[in-house]
Amino acid sequence: MKFSQLFTKTSKTAVSDADSINAKLLTQAGFITKQMAGVYVFLPLGLRVLNKIENTIREEMNKIGGNEVLMPTLTLEENYEITGRDKTLTDVFYRTSGAGESKIVLNPTHEEIVTPLVQKFVFSYQDLPKSVYQFQTKFRNEARAKSGLLRGREFRMKDMYSFHADEKDLDAYYEEVTKAYFRVYDRLGLGNGRTILTYASGGAFSKYSHEYQTLSSIGEDTIYICEKCQVAVNKEIADEQNVCPKCGNKDLKEEKAIEVGNIFKLMDKFTGPFKFLYQNEKGEQQVAQMGCYGIGPSRIMGTIVEVYNDEKGIIWPESVAPYKVHLMSLGKEEESKKEAEKIYQELSQKNIEVLFDDRGNSSAGEKLADADLIGLPYRVVVSKKTMEKGGVEVKKRNEENVEIIKAKDLIKILS
Amino acid sequence: MKFSQLFTKTSKTAVSDADSINAKLLTQAGFITKQMAGVYVFLPLGLRVLNKIENTIREEMNKIGGNEVLMPTLTLEENYEITGRDKTLTDVFYRTSGAGESKIVLNPTHEEIVTPLVQKFVFSYQDLPKSVYQFQTKFRNEARAKSGLLRGREFRMKDMYSFHADEKDLDAYYEEVTKAYFRVYDRLGLGNGRTILTYASGGAFSKYSHEYQTLSSIGEDTIYICEKCQVAVNKEIADEQNVCPKCGNKDLKEEKAIEVGNIFKLMDKFTGPFKFLYQNEKGEQQVAQMGCYGIGPSRIMGTIVEVYNDEKGIIWPESVAPYKVHLMSLGKEEESKKEAEKIYQELSQKNIEVLFDDRGNSSAGEKLADADLIGLPYRVVVSKKTMEKGGVEVKKRNEENVEIIKAKDLIKILS
Repeated sequence: MKFSQLFTKTSKTAVSDADSINAKLLTQAGFITKQMAGVYVFLPLGLRVLNKIENTIREEMNKIGGNEVLMPTLTLEENYEITGRDKTLTDVFYRTSGAGESKIVLNPTHEEIVTPLVQKFVFSYQDLPKSVYQFQTKFRNEARAKSGLLRGREFRMKDMYSFHADEKDLDAYYEEVTKAYFRVYDRLGLGNGRTILTYASGGAFSKYSHEYQTLSSIGEDTIYICEKCQVAVNKEIADEQNVCPKCGNKDLKEEKAIEVGNIFKLMDKFTGPFKFLYQNEKGEQQVAQMGCYGIGPSRIMGTIVEVYNDEKGIIWPESVAPYKVHLMSLGKEEESKKEAEKIYQELSQKNIEVLFDDRGNSSAGEKLADADLIGLPYRVVVSKKTMEKGGVEVKKRNEENVEIIKAKDLIKILS
Repeated sequence: MKFSQLFTKTSKTAVSDADSINAKLLTQAGFITKQMAGVYVFLPLGLRVLNKIENTIREEMNKIGGNEVLMPTLTLEENYEITGRDKTLTDVFYRTSGAGESKIVLNPTHEEIVTPLVQKFVFSYQDLPKSVYQFQTKFRNEARAKSGLLRGREFRMKDMYSFHADEKDLDAYYEEVTKAYFRVYDRLGLGNGRTILTYASGGAFSKYSHEYQTLSSIGEDTIYICEKCQVAVNKEIADEQNVCPKCGNKDLKEEKAIEVGNIFKLMDKFTGPFKFLYQNEKGEQQVAQMGCYGIGPSRIMGTIVEVYNDEKGIIWPESVAPYKVHLMSLGKEEESKKEAEKIYQELSQKNIEVLFDDRGNSSAGEKLADADLIGLPYRVVVSKKTMEKGGVEVKKRNEENVEIIKAKDLIKILS
């Protein structure tokens, strides 16, 4: 993509109400822009990041047998009356009404939609287990939208739901999902001890749920980490004597963290009220057991920026960077402009993702500052100086040293 | 994908309120299911079709320089007060309210969002033209939702908006989009005279807008076709003496059609009220000129089914079929089951999309009827009989004759 084809621009001045690093940098660098409190537009660069995050999650959900669907936003409130959540979720509902229907809600979550949906197709134990997921825009009337993409009112969500013949089968699948989630965080640059499996409240029907918490000073959650087991306990359930639920260790470390995922054994909480029954091997009617597994791609995007940045801008991990290479020519010389254009064509032909700053009227300083702000993994500069040295200058965004290499060796390095 | 991994099933009994072929067949074959009037869930097979339609459109919009974004659903009603459409769109708005904001609408269209959005980044003639599009879920409080995916209240939409320095530049881009849209319909199986460029009302600010109308008896629109020019006039603007707006021909043919796209020269209708100004080459402030270009992927999906079906089910064009091949083994023989499994593995490894009916407890009649109902382009049957004849039976969904070919030649035929 050439800068001249992009309709967005970077902006050096921070937006006045950006209350977090992710909101500030993503807005300045032209990835998102605020529509109203807690509601953002994803601009071309931002949408590419979001899609890469979603595709990574999709691959891992498919590997564990997830069936992708797309459920709707609009649903009659009567679905929630069946489980009683018309009362408990009432504060987070956005409500609307329309032709012939007076009580419609914008789904803030989809247990009340997916349970009767899967129920339609399950009759016998042979139809179980089944796992269903979607990527969807969720609407939650948060009292206070804040921290950019970390707490929005309209946001992206991957929500998966699994249905099982019994608790044992649910337990086994839950273990599989636990591992799949860690693979997701690893691939997105949030692995390697940055994201901790955290024991949280299981509600009235399970001992625990599990959150994935990414360490960050901006995080809303406080967690107590057992460094021996690499698990944590959320402050919400920690009593005065914190102990590791795995090894009993009492020497836990307090940290702030961002919740980047949540998995939950729902058991019969929803399948019970919906009378989701199946026939077991003995011919008896049984209630199916259910699990749910959430992860927010837009929140993940904000979290990555909170973790990967410096005073100059964003430092994208390669797996989610909107493009791999930030290419530019510096100076007025036609020769280096032509060389940059040639490199752009060559890299594009090799399917290497390049953002090419082809602006003719920008200074070297502006171009270099924009490259740091946008934060692509590789910066490639062509100028009279680099050509005299026999090539182009390559610098990684997360390293200090620069290197001159021959243009023809570029593809080898970047492939 | 194996049937045993899919959570959906086909259903022989029509849903009672399916008022159209597309709603009936898509529901029976397990592509969609109704959530409430005008609101559908896309099941795994249906989501694959929807994604193929959207990816085809995406490729063609990218070819003409479109910048993909994702705008939000929630917007303050004050955006619409600027253009006065808070009054004219009031019937189609779904309205809601939330923390601190009493007047929120669910966007039924995005002119009022995209205009100030692009305006933020355009200062000079050098920043124009720009073209911006999205795939998004739209919400319209239709008085009467009907005809399955053809007229929904929550539906998928690709909406593109272009901004230009002057009318001449808008005209040129409009021509480009006209051609891109025809490429889309051709690729989706709606070309070859099935979809007609139709002159429709241009409102107060343009002589005409243009609709793409696909011929179908279920269509809500009546159009008058000039068979010489292969264009049509919508009845809405046709006076008593219908004439072809291109050649003046009066011998027009009346047909029913489904509107599958709409393009519009908006001129300054939205850029005016938002004061979207740019500096021209002489340093003067000018109002940008705008066009908009809509196409509904979910409606396209319904239209394809209306066009391609027979008494047995859907007949998907290959470009949008959820899978290319419907594979099954018939009979109880272990040998043919094993052979089918082997073929499934081989085709999958070659990235040929296969739906494998691996059900052990279904009759040959059920399996064959489901293949016709689901409507994939190729049916491949393995049975004792076909193996005795030295291979597998291949049948195209849109042809009558069957052929026995050697299993090892299958990849050649299907690649």
